[in-house]
Amino acid sequence: MSNPTATLLISCPDQRGLVAKFANFIYANGGNIIHADQHTDFSAGLFLTRIEWQLNGFNLPKDLIAPAFNAIAQPLGAKWELHFSDTIPRIAIWVSRQDHCLYDLIWRHRANEFAAEIPLIISNHPHLKAVAAQFEIDFHHIPITKENKPEQEAKQIELLRQYKIDLVVLAKYMQILSADFITQFPQIINIHHSFLPAFVGANPYHRAFERGVKIIGATSHYVTTDLDAGPIIEQDVVRVSHRDEVEDLVRKGKDLERVVLARAVRLHLQNRVLVYGNRTVVFE
Amino acid sequence: MSNPTATLLISCPDQRGLVAKFANFIYANGGNIIHADQHTDFSAGLFLTRIEWQLNGFNLPKDLIAPAFNAIAQPLGAKWELHFSDTIPRIAIWVSRQDHCLYDLIWRHRANEFAAEIPLIISNHPHLKAVAAQFEIDFHHIPITKENKPEQEAKQIELLRQYKIDLVVLAKYMQILSADFITQFPQIINIHHSFLPAFVGANPYHRAFERGVKIIGATSHYVTTDLDAGPIIEQDVVRVSHRDEVEDLVRKGKDLERVVLARAVRLHLQNRVLVYGNRTVVFE
Amino acid sequence: MSNPTATLLISCPDQRGLVAKFANFIYANGGNIIHADQHTDFSAGLFLTRIEWQLNGFNLPKDLIAPAFNAIAQPLGAKWELHFSDTIPRIAIWVSRQDHCLYDLIWRHRANEFAAEIPLIISNHPHLKAVAAQFEIDFHHIPITKENKPEQEAKQIELLRQYKIDLVVLAKYMQILSADFITQFPQIINIHHSFLPAFVGANPYHRAFERGVKIIGATSHYVTTDLDAGPIIEQDVVRVSHRDEVEDLVRKGKDLERVVLARAVRLHLQNRVLVYGNRTVVFE
Amino acid sequence: MSNPTATLLISCPDQRGLVAKFANFIYANGGNIIHADQHTDFSAGLFLTRIEWQLNGFNLPKDLIAPAFNAIAQPLGAKWELHFSDTIPRIAIWVSRQDHCLYDLIWRHRANEFAAEIPLIISNHPHLKAVAAQFEIDFHHIPITKENKPEQEAKQIELLRQYKIDLVVLAKYMQILSADFITQFPQIINIHHSFLPAFVGANPYHRAFERGVKIIGATSHYVTTDLDAGPIIEQDVVRVSHRDEVEDLVRKGKDLERVVLARAVRLHLQNRVLVYGNRTVVFE
Repeated sequence: MSNPTATLLISCPDQRGLVAKFANFIYANGGNIIHADQHTDFSAGLFLTRIEWQLNGFNLPKDLIAPAFNAIAQPLGAKWELHFSDTIPRIAIWVSRQDHCLYDLIWRHRANEFAAEIPLIISNHPHLKAVAAQFEIDFHHIPITKENKPEQEAKQIELLRQYKIDLVVLAKYMQILSADFITQFPQIINIHHSFLPAFVGANPYHRAFERGVKIIGATSHYVTTDLDAGPIIEQDVVRVSHRDEVEDLVRKGKDLERVVLARAVRLHLQNRVLVYGNRTVVFE
Repeated sequence: MSNPTATLLISCPDQRGLVAKFANFIYANGGNIIHADQHTDFSAGLFLTRIEWQLNGFNLPKDLIAPAFNAIAQPLGAKWELHFSDTIPRIAIWVSRQDHCLYDLIWRHRANEFAAEIPLIISNHPHLKAVAAQFEIDFHHIPITKENKPEQEAKQIELLRQYKIDLVVLAKYMQILSADFITQFPQIINIHHSFLPAFVGANPYHRAFERGVKIIGATSHYVTTDLDAGPIIEQDVVRVSHRDEVEDLVRKGKDLERVVLARAVRLHLQNRVLVYGNRTVVFE
Repeated sequence: MSNPTATLLISCPDQRGLVAKFANFIYANGGNIIHADQHTDFSAGLFLTRIEWQLNGFNLPKDLIAPAFNAIAQPLGAKWELHFSDTIPRIAIWVSRQDHCLYDLIWRHRANEFAAEIPLIISNHPHLKAVAAQFEIDFHHIPITKENKPEQEAKQIELLRQYKIDLVVLAKYMQILSADFITQFPQIINIHHSFLPAFVGANPYHRAFERGVKIIGATSHYVTTDLDAGPIIEQDVVRVSHRDEVEDLVRKGKDLERVVLARAVRLHLQNRVLVYGNRTVVFE
Repeated sequence: MSNPTATLLISCPDQRGLVAKFANFIYANGGNIIHADQHTDFSAGLFLTRIEWQLNGFNLPKDLIAPAFNAIAQPLGAKWELHFSDTIPRIAIWVSRQDHCLYDLIWRHRANEFAAEIPLIISNHPHLKAVAAQFEIDFHHIPITKENKPEQEAKQIELLRQYKIDLVVLAKYMQILSADFITQFPQIINIHHSFLPAFVGANPYHRAFERGVKIIGATSHYVTTDLDAGPIIEQDVVRVSHRDEVEDLVRKGKDLERVVLARAVRLHLQNRVLVYGNRTVVFE
């Protein structure tokens, strides 16, 4: 990335002049805006925006941008995040026994679809150790039982710290994380194998088959303490028919899961996802 | 239709030789099969098939086909329906205040997409009387309250008899039919404005908006006494984003509702839908 | 529309500070921006933006906005258009014999999906006169032959002037407009019944059938003198199979044509389509 | 596969009694039909069918099925193929420098989506040798120039013979095969990175970008001597917008190419694709 950028994600009570104020902050400091997008949620009275500008030629040094912008944002009551494209996030992929999302994420990483590093795989099963080895990623097997969950989650948190992980991607990790874990490490993206809110919970493909639906889906969302109810980042669907047995739904669903999870991770890494309440704005 | 056809829809405990037996029945009587499709539900142990053949040149007179076929079907334990393409079904469209599905069904009828007659519109509101008049279809306004529902349903049943109706299409009829009504007149197709089983019940667009889904859908199904849980005939979806307010979901949803309901009605009229349990086989 | 808005569509050689300059123009005059979207075409070196703000509370009277903005735009080399939401555009729908797009546009107009008036229908055939009468829209039958085309186009131009038409929508008008006509009246949206650039020209459904494609499409585009090659506004597709005869492609295609044309017209009427070169930016 | 099956793919001049005759052949020999599907192309006067039955309990030994069926088929003028599910086809994957389809096919093979063996990878570049090694598949680097093409194709044909290959899958192999090669080895499936027949030939993504299309696609087809014009097996599409640069089209297209090629290969391996003329019937 020869020309690094800074990105602001801002949510702010709606009021006159916000576009001008934020744009002026960049312009006054010599920045060149390359993407700016905004959305107003009229019912919530919120102005939501994403602004990305080139750091080359920007007069403020990187460590002064946040305090300088805060001087503008605070009086407006804005919440905001600042990201730099040359600070590469670090991802831990969590899996159980299924390998399709893992292979897909790794392949995309190698194809440069993700501006991120993937130094760590955590699993409650040993099955995918060989895949990790094949691509030279550290693999930690942390089996989970009802009894050992708290101490194993402590180990997981410790690993995330040790590997300096910024984002956990649950790539078909078939365990529920405790509220305590999520509080300690809230940056988690999950893939759910149904078109949420249909078939919340376990065995969505079996239940889709029984209900006789004509379309199945997959949903990628941020994990919250409310199971399968976190803010949705991306969804997609595929047609099925009476000819599809449960195993066909599973097979077709895998293709969805791979693509939907990958899109959500990519959007997150590009800082295109702004969460407010239980909703997302995806600045595509 | 210069060359009328007969269609058998059969569901039968699976056993060796069914395709041969059914095909031989047609062939031995000089019939020319123009469509034959089958499906085996292995978990239910059921063989399901649709066979359509030309009546020209068929040796059996129309009124003897059913008894003759029954002699084959009964020993096999088969359930079956027989339809003739030159017996034109009669549809009653039921509406409330929204006109989009009504206009669409009428337009398709005039464009010869439906082999059916539409002699009757029933509504619990007077609003669409003018549309009915415009296309010269009888319109009956039957307002429904909690108190008058039983007697009004009796009037509706009487109208269906009087107009010799074969199929009721609920084209955004915003009332729940009683179990008693459904028992008396079970051939009812409904359009539900969500991707069932997501957002069962009232106000699906508002709830889809609140949940922040990225895709909305519509579902056409047969009506059963279990609300919004009848056998699904057809579904379709459309992408939405944070830029879509509830009113945009409603607008986009209308396009879905029109198309999904029309497809379901057409499939039903072509005798392509075989219901078993709470599922459908759609022989497309 | 209790709160009218103004919308600027701007394309401008890319340079530092454009977002700030345009936003400041609105803010300095007391305007409240409710939508702002931008795109940079890096290969073309162009900055493209759409800004919509409320006129209530805006200090500049409507007739001074254009000259005031021009003082900013001209030094930057910008091309721009200014639209007011309370200036209602007038549409002429042109048809031949097929009625599906016509009915659909009229229905949407009545459902308030289009902020426009539709005072005029022009056709080279008399067939749809009754539809026009049904909805009380003036209908002019202007038959076209090779010989009379220049004089008939003169009549058409005269009608467009007389009815103060802003936009011509070719809703399955099966005639090619002359280059001369297009030069005189360039605001024309067409629906082409294929997934352009596949099957440019005549009989796309027949050719799609012969080629054995598994998906068909429809394309709405601005009309230019280069047949079927104008800037694309919207496209959509539907799956087909070997079971679909040409007449099924036609039937399925009609549903596409209706929706794709309607979306394109709506986007145009909301001033969301910015044409540059032979491409469009659609600010959704 | 504990219960192997036989599958007949038949195309036959349409005539009375075909379903009965073919079904009787299976039934008379004690076979249990588990799938039967048919299609009549009325304009071509052709009856096309796929029949699959269980070999367990079938009275005819495998080597007598073909001659026995031929005695029925020949008088009818039928063309047919017979396949056994326990005869596992052998695939050669051909690649150039891009790895996405290769990885995907290998992953699906390991996930048991393909009933086939993949013993051979051929490439005109050395780049993907390591991928082949990773999954322990033989890799042959056969560089192609204008001058050496005939002798290199001879080597390729020799390899296909040596490895007993039944099907060549061109998984982004960026060379055109000679008519001579295709005549010698006609079982070839290709993936083309456009929604054919749009953008036949080179650089479809660049040309799609320039044309400003709103949807891109991918097409999998059998290879014939007429470049990019062979019978289409499967197509799919994805939406793009002005925000997508050529490199985004390439990235989105890769996801399409993977899925479309894999579906086509799977359908072929399940003997669900019947080619006639330049069209396919896909018995799904």
